[in-house]
Amino acid sequence: MEYPLPIAQLIDSYMKLPGIGEKTATRLAFYTLDMPMQDVSDFAQALTNVKSKLHQCSICGNITEQDPCSICSNPSRDQTMIMVVEQPKDVMAFEDMGEYDGLYHVLHGVLSPMDGMGPEEINIKSLITRLQKQDQVKEIIIALNSTPEGESTAMYISKLIKPAGIKVTRLAAGLAVGSDIEYANSITLKRAVQGRTSL
Amino acid sequence: MEYPLPIAQLIDSYMKLPGIGEKTATRLAFYTLDMPMQDVSDFAQALTNVKSKLHQCSICGNITEQDPCSICSNPSRDQTMIMVVEQPKDVMAFEDMGEYDGLYHVLHGVLSPMDGMGPEEINIKSLITRLQKQDQVKEIIIALNSTPEGESTAMYISKLIKPAGIKVTRLAAGLAVGSDIEYANSITLKRAVQGRTSL
Repeated sequence: MEYPLPIAQLIDSYMKLPGIGEKTATRLAFYTLDMPMQDVSDFAQALTNVKSKLHQCSICGNITEQDPCSICSNPSRDQTMIMVVEQPKDVMAFEDMGEYDGLYHVLHGVLSPMDGMGPEEINIKSLITRLQKQDQVKEIIIALNSTPEGESTAMYISKLIKPAGIKVTRLAAGLAVGSDIEYANSITLKRAVQGRTSL
Repeated sequence: MEYPLPIAQLIDSYMKLPGIGEKTATRLAFYTLDMPMQDVSDFAQALTNVKSKLHQCSICGNITEQDPCSICSNPSRDQTMIMVVEQPKDVMAFEDMGEYDGLYHVLHGVLSPMDGMGPEEINIKSLITRLQKQDQVKEIIIALNSTPEGESTAMYISKLIKPAGIKVTRLAAGLAVGSDIEYANSITLKRAVQGRTSL
């Protein structure tokens, strides 16, 4: 027996989310059927809003309701530093840390030729344009994940920017705080030894 | 840093789904942000439709777009048997099996005094009314889960219906096909022995 059309369509939509297969999607669709009307209409509204009300900041590429975003338009932030991150989520993570008060630049991806992600597909060009306009920038901190794609994107950006005389740094690699040496992989250990600091 | 409001609202909505915590909801919300506009608006529409276009069949309680549902309004189905199930999903499961061509009655729950589910909260009254009207019914098959709540609901319905002279049966309990005796629990084994059939 086919599911009634509205249920079948909702199952299809849930299945488009990452990590949700047919069984889970079906369970979620039937659960939705029993949810209070208000919760479901709020959910539908939230889905629509997230696409219609959020945009990329024209300066840094972070997601925002106003353009420019609250970080780019805040004059009390340190205008001499730009931290380059992959995703808007990463900006949230560094803001939650609370120790960094410079600016950001969100690439929306990393270089990955296998997935068709070249320099044109990510937000690199706007970073260069930005550096030409904002000549007070002294340091670019590259805060990309320690994956092969992250590393090669870091190298690419570094090569583009260094000739302009701007300092390019990247995050320290090493043991995560609270982690166990026994379970660390050998590349992490190698980086931890290379980057050892004096006590 | 707070998430922009539209993202925060979508995270809240995802968190109302079963088995989805804050981390997963955040991941889904950011994923939604990068989904094609069409997929997101289809998703929002499907959510709205599932609440507005589906109703309970006034006869059997199954979810349906038309009332009465396609099963109740099909005269070629066996009108002498009603299978009592807990959820609309169970109807789908039996229809997929393809061996049963009687009618259904969907309780939308089982008796569970601890959760405030008494006979008034589930679709039992409408079953009795239905049996008074449809006097061709000869057998009620109780197809509820083998949980304490399912068993006590089965007993309750059986006691209500038996005085009317209608046969009440329930699904066979025993080993699932393809399962391993080694891993079966003792109640299942007890039922399998009690219900043994001759070869």
